[in-house]
Amino acid sequence: MFVPINKIITFASMEFSSKLIEEAVNEFSKLPGVGKRTALRYVLFLLKQNETEVTQFGTAFIKLRNELRYCENCHNVSDKPLCEVCANPHRDQTLVCVVEDIRDVMAIENTQQFRGVYHVLGGIISPMDGVGPSDLNVETLVGKVSKGEIKEIIMALSTTMEGDTTNFYIYKRLKEFNITVSTIARGISIGDELEYADEITLGRSIVNRTLYENTFSIK
Amino acid sequence: MFVPINKIITFASMEFSSKLIEEAVNEFSKLPGVGKRTALRYVLFLLKQNETEVTQFGTAFIKLRNELRYCENCHNVSDKPLCEVCANPHRDQTLVCVVEDIRDVMAIENTQQFRGVYHVLGGIISPMDGVGPSDLNVETLVGKVSKGEIKEIIMALSTTMEGDTTNFYIYKRLKEFNITVSTIARGISIGDELEYADEITLGRSIVNRTLYENTFSIK
Repeated sequence: MFVPINKIITFASMEFSSKLIEEAVNEFSKLPGVGKRTALRYVLFLLKQNETEVTQFGTAFIKLRNELRYCENCHNVSDKPLCEVCANPHRDQTLVCVVEDIRDVMAIENTQQFRGVYHVLGGIISPMDGVGPSDLNVETLVGKVSKGEIKEIIMALSTTMEGDTTNFYIYKRLKEFNITVSTIARGISIGDELEYADEITLGRSIVNRTLYENTFSIK
Repeated sequence: MFVPINKIITFASMEFSSKLIEEAVNEFSKLPGVGKRTALRYVLFLLKQNETEVTQFGTAFIKLRNELRYCENCHNVSDKPLCEVCANPHRDQTLVCVVEDIRDVMAIENTQQFRGVYHVLGGIISPMDGVGPSDLNVETLVGKVSKGEIKEIIMALSTTMEGDTTNFYIYKRLKEFNITVSTIARGISIGDELEYADEITLGRSIVNRTLYENTFSIK
């Protein structure tokens, strides 16, 4: 039995019976983690929907890109000049949590444990992807701090090489001002077993141990 | 340590800081296999693209749905009244391969082993999903066969309960006409090991064994 190698190649470069399908598949496969096969699955799904639904689908993204505004204070996405968090008088404007993007804002908001405001960087320093400090919302953060209205900055970035670099860069930029710079606690996740934890996390969780009475979420 | 159960619920129903983001996430999460988290990842990706690219992204689907036509003969997608396969004079119009959707047409075309034409059903009979014979392109197939222009029908549907039901339904509908109805060969896939094959497949591969000289793809 003989399977020619060009089979595999023709499979990778799928041939479509329609230019329109090809275009739509190409558009979908631009999305992160979506290949040609998944894209085609999405396209076939759309073809089964009625015209109104597909028009709604397409226009949602165009509207999103053209009409979406960012909060003037924290760069969070918002339909108004100030986002809901920044506009809320009950939030502590002197406590700022620095995050990478709006997904992190949503994740922290879901915990209902944070009463301060956010500052969305819009990415992290990553020389490999060509992202430098000037591509991020760092200057506006330094500007806010220099006005003396902020007491504490909580760095809530991923524990990766890029996250650590960004932490360090911002820490250095804010050093001259008289504010506290803290990072979110690193430790064993709730539900995790000690024996499977990596050494650095376990080590940090011992060094940065907390008083037992501070671990109750209801007091 | 105490984690309230409502945490899990609030996480499932994510709160978005913008109506536009919420709409776009809802649209993406209509796609098969896409949840709210993946949808948000796609939305954040689109927000980083420039306006022209996002407009192109959105309009590709609207254009697809509004302008796409189906082949009058085989129901394959096509930009012209007849698809490339049906319009090709070198293809054998008396040999028809019945498939579920255009993905199967593409898969079979990629093998470069089939010289006949197709008939796309647009689905398979699935009472669970509310799909009956009247929802499929069966009548046009019976119509073509009744004209006496077709010699052989090759059924190339999935080996599932639904595929078998559809096979049997079409077989019964075509019984009165003097044509051959065949199905694609079931057997051990090339590269598979015998000991891991299921009993039904292995059993069928022995019953429907082929002459050794017919297994060469180059003659």
